[in-house]
Amino acid sequence: MSNPTAAMLVIGDEILSGRTRDSNMHHLANALTAHGIDLCEVRVVSDKPAAIEAAVRALSDAYDHVFTSGGIGPTHDDITAENVARAFGVSIGLRDDARAVLQAHYDRQGIELNEARLRMARIPEGATLIDNPVSAAPGFTLRNVHVMAGVPAIFEAMVAGVLPELTGGAPVQSRNMTVSKGEGDIAGPLTELAARFPELSFGSYPAMKDGRFSVNIVIRGQDEARLDAAMDALRGAVQA
Amino acid sequence: MSNPTAAMLVIGDEILSGRTRDSNMHHLANALTAHGIDLCEVRVVSDKPAAIEAAVRALSDAYDHVFTSGGIGPTHDDITAENVARAFGVSIGLRDDARAVLQAHYDRQGIELNEARLRMARIPEGATLIDNPVSAAPGFTLRNVHVMAGVPAIFEAMVAGVLPELTGGAPVQSRNMTVSKGEGDIAGPLTELAARFPELSFGSYPAMKDGRFSVNIVIRGQDEARLDAAMDALRGAVQA
Repeated sequence: MSNPTAAMLVIGDEILSGRTRDSNMHHLANALTAHGIDLCEVRVVSDKPAAIEAAVRALSDAYDHVFTSGGIGPTHDDITAENVARAFGVSIGLRDDARAVLQAHYDRQGIELNEARLRMARIPEGATLIDNPVSAAPGFTLRNVHVMAGVPAIFEAMVAGVLPELTGGAPVQSRNMTVSKGEGDIAGPLTELAARFPELSFGSYPAMKDGRFSVNIVIRGQDEARLDAAMDALRGAVQA
Repeated sequence: MSNPTAAMLVIGDEILSGRTRDSNMHHLANALTAHGIDLCEVRVVSDKPAAIEAAVRALSDAYDHVFTSGGIGPTHDDITAENVARAFGVSIGLRDDARAVLQAHYDRQGIELNEARLRMARIPEGATLIDNPVSAAPGFTLRNVHVMAGVPAIFEAMVAGVLPELTGGAPVQSRNMTVSKGEGDIAGPLTELAARFPELSFGSYPAMKDGRFSVNIVIRGQDEARLDAAMDALRGAVQA
């Protein structure tokens, strides 16, 4: 009954320094939710070999799937592939099919497949390639780890290619309602409802606009009838 | 010479389900960079006691500071405080000074300090309070863990209150340049520069707009003269 689990690993100093605002996490979270896979944890680590290797190993052990973002380009700071290989103790080397994809792409553009670009054809032993319809350089899946690019357009295209191959559970549905009350006013009724519908999850998200608080209450679960019943009960409880 | 290190822990199912797009990570990353503290890792975990406790313990052990965001409100899913206490093996209970802050705030508004709101005065033993100028309910610092609200306006106000109390290192400065070339064209020169200026970090960030690639090259470090020298060398190398 329970859905497959997943973690995301974002690799990149640029996120941690504040230079870049990550958007891949939000995209993947929505895509996984729609596919019936539960995103349970996200880690952001720097471009350091030990940090990448340790995070890949920990997340791969703990979850059904791991999705990584970033660090698979041609420059010296693109070290994801070799450290994913290291995490699993497999070798990495130039692979003919990846090289052919790059060669065809750069030939079409009249650009040289130089040494730096060739690095993008280095793939860990035993991996399958993930298609990159945007700029050719492939991602790959090794065991339960899906290694993808950090550039959002490429990341999103790779996610769209990978997800249909993965078995999802029942998509999690949600209902939500915004109440112009403080969280402290609806906390009591919400606790009672959460106890009455233990198979659903109840979230309460305060927001502030023009100095006034409101709360968005979100009920999530896989059974639509129960969701509707909980929503009715919530309406009765908080609008009384 | 090296700066203090930090990690961030974002707590909340709403980020992992895709309902909410986190903005606190980006804010904290910039604030820490300006203060001379290196943000080394971010984790996002769900509203589950074991997940929060394990992450707090791991990050508190590994870094000088941990900043948490989310889960300190009045509802049943706000379980950060008790699990931070558990991570350190200390008790948690209603604290008089926190209660007084809440009482004064709600009295001013003519709102009842009910049982749910009183939960926000539960503070782990040995913690110091973090002021909340927006909605009164305090955060707290326990050992090296700074526990703050998830609502961005409150999170940002708390960060502004906490950071001046923390010793920072030399702020990391950066220089950057955008080049209308592919990453594969500048990878060679960039690798040479990174070897020539080992005390600086060189990042290369591809972007795509209207089907054309460009690369933003960022050089980061604490020594302005070296940064300028590296930037000059970079200009010579990639614009040749």
